[in-house]
Amino acid sequence: MPGMSSPLVISLPAWVEPAVSKWLPATSDAERMRLVVELSRENVVRETGGPFAAAVFERVTGKVVAAGVNSVTRLNNSVLHAEIMALMLAQQQRGTFTLREPACELVTSCAPCAMCLGAILWSGVTRVVCGAGREDAHRVAFDEGPVFPESYRYLQERGIEIVHDVCREEARAVLDLYRERGGRIYNG
Amino acid sequence: MPGMSSPLVISLPAWVEPAVSKWLPATSDAERMRLVVELSRENVVRETGGPFAAAVFERVTGKVVAAGVNSVTRLNNSVLHAEIMALMLAQQQRGTFTLREPACELVTSCAPCAMCLGAILWSGVTRVVCGAGREDAHRVAFDEGPVFPESYRYLQERGIEIVHDVCREEARAVLDLYRERGGRIYNG
Repeated sequence: MPGMSSPLVISLPAWVEPAVSKWLPATSDAERMRLVVELSRENVVRETGGPFAAAVFERVTGKVVAAGVNSVTRLNNSVLHAEIMALMLAQQQRGTFTLREPACELVTSCAPCAMCLGAILWSGVTRVVCGAGREDAHRVAFDEGPVFPESYRYLQERGIEIVHDVCREEARAVLDLYRERGGRIYNG
Repeated sequence: MPGMSSPLVISLPAWVEPAVSKWLPATSDAERMRLVVELSRENVVRETGGPFAAAVFERVTGKVVAAGVNSVTRLNNSVLHAEIMALMLAQQQRGTFTLREPACELVTSCAPCAMCLGAILWSGVTRVVCGAGREDAHRVAFDEGPVFPESYRYLQERGIEIVHDVCREEARAVLDLYRERGGRIYNG
């Protein structure tokens, strides 16, 4: 049993870095999303977490800054959604708590839950690209929390561009795969 | 510069554990809040982060499971609000991603931002006690993100009790202290 203040050590599954290191800079939304959806599929197949992945890219160059996969069950930590992993690792990589320069975007295989939408606002990314939708997550019994149309507007009014439904079918297929395999639903 | 997948190591400032280890089980909301507000004040005075603290308590016994202080600037990580630190450390302490048994509550020196409200929903706590309000945070220029009355209702409908304005004046005084000392505002 760790002490009350034992440090948290949060790491990706070992298979992620070799997979991501093979990525070439991806310039279109669809290219970036396909890389991320492939990570989400691997996370299901290798049974290292929920059917979700995300990555932070430099907007102009398409270079990946960091990637994340859902790690809630693997690390026994309900905060560790894919987007949170990617944002925290990108900030570690950059040595800053705001990802402003050069400008970054978050590409996520599923529209963010309430926690991740808030985290995006504080992270300094200026663009978000989503694959599967909130309804797709609901369909496989994942709750998305209190996200409303005005939640998105709140981010947009602060200069964050949000793009929905990029490669949605491919992203949704991974959610279905998770359900078919009897994956654990871990809502609070 | 860490590699893309170097583990994140997240720890509390060294002064927190000795402070928290002196706490006796606190049975009332006001007693618990005063302990938490004192942590938020220490975080300002010792310049280890923003003017916010939180702790997870066992609801019945008042025993503290874990505490957190805002660590955004100290650890260069925009996710590390006090509530997130406390929830992640409590889950590590318990070895589970849901804090259901025995029932826990989160006591936070300021009403949670959008990210933390979402994190609360996934954490398994069944009660939240807030000190300062959203307007108090705004008054010292901290944004709270897309939190609406229906956001709180969403949590309440899922069985989470939410209590506002406990020792609000004491909690607000710490926000004012941070501003007077010229503390950094680190919104995304």
